[in-house]
Amino acid sequence: MDLITLAHGAGGKLTAKLIDNLFKKYLGNEYLFQGDDGAVLSLPTSKIVFSTDSFVVSPRIFPGGDIGKLAVYGTVNDLAVMGAKPLFLSLGLILEEGLMIPELERIIQSIAEAAKITGVKIVTGDTKVVEKGKGDQIYINTSGIGVINAPFIPTGRAAKPGDKILVNGFLGDHGAAILACRENITGDFISDCAPLNDLIELILENFPVHTMRDPSRGGLAATLNEIAKQSRVGIELWEESIPIRPQVKTLCGYLGLDAFALANEGKVVVILPSEVATEVLETMKTHPLGQNAAIIGEVKNEPQGIVYLKNAFGGERIIDMPLGENLPRIC
Amino acid sequence: MDLITLAHGAGGKLTAKLIDNLFKKYLGNEYLFQGDDGAVLSLPTSKIVFSTDSFVVSPRIFPGGDIGKLAVYGTVNDLAVMGAKPLFLSLGLILEEGLMIPELERIIQSIAEAAKITGVKIVTGDTKVVEKGKGDQIYINTSGIGVINAPFIPTGRAAKPGDKILVNGFLGDHGAAILACRENITGDFISDCAPLNDLIELILENFPVHTMRDPSRGGLAATLNEIAKQSRVGIELWEESIPIRPQVKTLCGYLGLDAFALANEGKVVVILPSEVATEVLETMKTHPLGQNAAIIGEVKNEPQGIVYLKNAFGGERIIDMPLGENLPRIC
Repeated sequence: MDLITLAHGAGGKLTAKLIDNLFKKYLGNEYLFQGDDGAVLSLPTSKIVFSTDSFVVSPRIFPGGDIGKLAVYGTVNDLAVMGAKPLFLSLGLILEEGLMIPELERIIQSIAEAAKITGVKIVTGDTKVVEKGKGDQIYINTSGIGVINAPFIPTGRAAKPGDKILVNGFLGDHGAAILACRENITGDFISDCAPLNDLIELILENFPVHTMRDPSRGGLAATLNEIAKQSRVGIELWEESIPIRPQVKTLCGYLGLDAFALANEGKVVVILPSEVATEVLETMKTHPLGQNAAIIGEVKNEPQGIVYLKNAFGGERIIDMPLGENLPRIC
Repeated sequence: MDLITLAHGAGGKLTAKLIDNLFKKYLGNEYLFQGDDGAVLSLPTSKIVFSTDSFVVSPRIFPGGDIGKLAVYGTVNDLAVMGAKPLFLSLGLILEEGLMIPELERIIQSIAEAAKITGVKIVTGDTKVVEKGKGDQIYINTSGIGVINAPFIPTGRAAKPGDKILVNGFLGDHGAAILACRENITGDFISDCAPLNDLIELILENFPVHTMRDPSRGGLAATLNEIAKQSRVGIELWEESIPIRPQVKTLCGYLGLDAFALANEGKVVVILPSEVATEVLETMKTHPLGQNAAIIGEVKNEPQGIVYLKNAFGGERIIDMPLGENLPRIC
């Protein structure tokens, strides 16, 4: 069996072989073929978004995705929610000695497919190898460059009192799929791992979005708490309106977790003026990734920096920033 | 003692605390303070170089540097050798559970200092935490963006027969320092870890460089073999002209290694027309990082893709692409 050895990361013959046999083969494009220490890029505009994310998800392959797909979509989504068109990604691999090369090949194929789907190019890369017991098969960093053409850029600092809060579908599916895998819990748990750039483009082209963010690690709870603090507003959520699958609710009860703190990898929170909320909702529903979209709450003047949940009976509870101690390596 | 826990990587309260208490404190700038999923950047030009590198060096602290400094200078140097002015870096951290927070703080301070020295800004970042035994305290990815103003861009594909090959000083110092550390060998071994952007700017402003590359992992041997293949030329090296410290030669003999395959972290190989070689050498020597610069060889028509070493007695031997099996985690 072909295994990754320490020499594969030493910059010599075996590194070159990996580059030729895997990276150039599956990811090759005019930039990667330049073969220099970096890629020379001519951007269509000089206003860009630059983002980075490392991926250490365990297990590496899960229902609905794998670490390769996640690494591409994760950074593509981070660029898209900033109002940028994702164009170029870098790929940094940290491999553990003993990783099977066919396994690496499958992950690279998955990266290539995800790049093709989202229209981004992997233009520069790096591979390091660490000794057995100093890693966990594969860790991936992707950094990305997207270009901005939109007149306004959504930011966590721009949510305004009166704005409505929308989400494009069921929350917590990625976190639930990973946890179910790890705990050997059977059931209908599938990660929502998906590229959001197309759906987001559709929204941004037509509506004046104030804030947009993908509630990945830390889930809806972390994302809205960040926004409430950045924008100095209160955020009211409507319990009955938040789409969560029944099996995810059950799993959370079983594991003692809050579904609002579970990670998503194909969801976007959109905050914009109340007047256009219904129209945006209808637009989102026309897209395959927005079929279960919902208006889930409203931005308030007060209490600043606080997210709270209201139910139909008038009950209220604060949704705090999660601590996260039960949710390691979710992405 | 304050330790990194898995919850520090879960995107909740403890992640936010790390961001505020370490990253914003030491690395803070107008872009990082945006606090969104990526940084919005207005570049002075739309022609850029994009590069990525992960750093897994062991030990993390070594004579002449540490993993933080290395992570900044490594990517800055990759951008500089491509003819770009380094402007922006991303910072991706993979921390091992149990890392002492004061240790992380020292590394972040070192990153901040290196960024200041080189005039780059850390504009976006990400932190993940893996379980004890699934990492080695800290792995760092930096990706970087530099802008190109030069009329020509050096590339590994542009070396021409007749060109002279220069290097800015002693080779193998970084590799020797790391290996001496690991093997507990005492002696005067200090990494050459340094930012090359200033020296390179001085050269590029004044001379028509064909090829420029920093011989890091895999050393001079890997770098010149890559260039010989990319440019379809032969490369002749002059043994007596290549600056290597006596103690590094001795260490290589002791460990059975080739000094040409040892990593450098503050060296640049410059290939340009013979007519200007002496003048470039003099210019390099005016710079603190070029005091021991030398002309070490010449590009030949033949044999294509081959690097060979000639000595004063007419002896010749081929310098092959290193395999690298003895040099893991050198950067």
